[in-house]
Amino acid sequence: MRRIRVAAAQMGPIQKAETREQVVARMIALMDDAAGKGADFIVYPELALTTFFPRWYHADRAEADHWFEAQMPGPQTQPLFDRAREHGMAMSFGYAELTPDGHHFNTSILVDKSGAIIGKYRKIHLPGHDEYDEERAFQHLEKRYFEPGDLGFPVWRMLGGIFGMCICNDRRWPETYRVMGLQGVEMVVLGFNTPSVNSQKGEEGIEQRMFHHRLSLQAGAYQNATWVVAVAKAGSEDGHHLMGGTMIVDPDGFIVAQLGHEDDGVLVHDCDLDATRFGKETIFDFARHRRIAHYGLITGRVGAEPPPEE
Amino acid sequence: MRRIRVAAAQMGPIQKAETREQVVARMIALMDDAAGKGADFIVYPELALTTFFPRWYHADRAEADHWFEAQMPGPQTQPLFDRAREHGMAMSFGYAELTPDGHHFNTSILVDKSGAIIGKYRKIHLPGHDEYDEERAFQHLEKRYFEPGDLGFPVWRMLGGIFGMCICNDRRWPETYRVMGLQGVEMVVLGFNTPSVNSQKGEEGIEQRMFHHRLSLQAGAYQNATWVVAVAKAGSEDGHHLMGGTMIVDPDGFIVAQLGHEDDGVLVHDCDLDATRFGKETIFDFARHRRIAHYGLITGRVGAEPPPEE
Repeated sequence: MRRIRVAAAQMGPIQKAETREQVVARMIALMDDAAGKGADFIVYPELALTTFFPRWYHADRAEADHWFEAQMPGPQTQPLFDRAREHGMAMSFGYAELTPDGHHFNTSILVDKSGAIIGKYRKIHLPGHDEYDEERAFQHLEKRYFEPGDLGFPVWRMLGGIFGMCICNDRRWPETYRVMGLQGVEMVVLGFNTPSVNSQKGEEGIEQRMFHHRLSLQAGAYQNATWVVAVAKAGSEDGHHLMGGTMIVDPDGFIVAQLGHEDDGVLVHDCDLDATRFGKETIFDFARHRRIAHYGLITGRVGAEPPPEE
Repeated sequence: MRRIRVAAAQMGPIQKAETREQVVARMIALMDDAAGKGADFIVYPELALTTFFPRWYHADRAEADHWFEAQMPGPQTQPLFDRAREHGMAMSFGYAELTPDGHHFNTSILVDKSGAIIGKYRKIHLPGHDEYDEERAFQHLEKRYFEPGDLGFPVWRMLGGIFGMCICNDRRWPETYRVMGLQGVEMVVLGFNTPSVNSQKGEEGIEQRMFHHRLSLQAGAYQNATWVVAVAKAGSEDGHHLMGGTMIVDPDGFIVAQLGHEDDGVLVHDCDLDATRFGKETIFDFARHRRIAHYGLITGRVGAEPPPEE
């Protein structure tokens, strides 16, 4: 048994008007709550420090730069790192990253219990679009404000286990989990900001979207025999509703814990990393069962190409 | 709207003592039932012509050759092809294939409404083991009696749509659906023979195994925006129980029809192939969203390789 007590730290909405200091204070309150419950590792949502700003269009992209962090930790986030170190708690959270040479990424980091950043992931599967789209009920401009991640899907050893990260829409792509599964991942952590209606299909409401959310997490967990910890930013941000659905999925694909509200709150669960072994050693023993000679299109072709018409 | 009326033709158990003629008569009865219901396409299970013989160990592999077909159609299966042509119904079924040069495969074929074999698939993800395993509650010797398929995961145009096949354990592997998804597949059909308990984990009973079955089908359908038709051989074969779970999953991942018994019976559903378009053109528009530069391990590495110990 290798037990990790994880705290999935869901955040309620962050309004445009909220400052970083206000948000970091909320994150510290969640961390203190998690510490009181004995957590080893706390996981916050995607873009945890700000509102989900890709819903707001700026003709001049640079007008969105104030949502980005040029330093991590910076003066406003240093207190969060300090508190984590005091608690001896590892953490992961997402933020908008502006690099010194001017690149923009949707990023998450992995911080060990000493407060050191040991891992960084930059979101690869950016959903949405890059120009104003009049046909959508609302904008989802991730492809405008971010570049696709350039770091792949690495994993890291920490707390006696193997951890990986992905972000929001990445969770719908089986490639995400598989690349980490091929590195022996035992726990994938991710944050998400998911509008509760489809901007291109109004009748696809929260029930169907929650089903797709669960389905993607559960399949990724089962098919790679890994824990998956998914953490929402939820509730109504300046009138735009994000669904909840913070949950922890075990290596058999079962949801073992979930939050039923849309506010700030921690979901704590003991995850035995050795529970990944049965799956990895039997039905998903990749070395015995995978047949890469027949998977060539997965890396050889980007888009779908139907066969020629008869 | 491109409507295909599909009949998922579940088969109850086939005992060792049953002859091919008896089985083909059952298949024809199912086909007549499907024809009465207006089906365009009938799908039968994996190894539809025989009992699930990989549960029986033979020290001399050749003793299992009588379960294989050296000809397709052969004298015993010709009546099935004849009846399909009379009904103008396309069909797919699985059988054990012995090639003229002595190779053994777990195969399925796609037959168009004129009775011509237009497609062949040979099972790639063979589960189980190749030598007698004393530690298992029962044997699952697919790796003994079959070679891994050598034809990849092709798709075929038929009935105005794009069809693909896989077999049983293939359905648990996201690579299966993705390779077909990259060829624009609109309907994946598969048969299965799934023991209702895990031979290596007795406490994993039918409820958990049915969950994994559904999860795999639903994720494959959703993540590739394709219909999935899954057809069981079910019930107790000489005291060995196979679970049911014949079902049809739509391109959003929802189960739209399922059988609740373990006997011979057809499940008929109208599938609109145009229902695949929304997913293929938005969230799973592979050309816009996939990032193959970061998927390299999927085709570059067979087994999992954890990072070095710290």
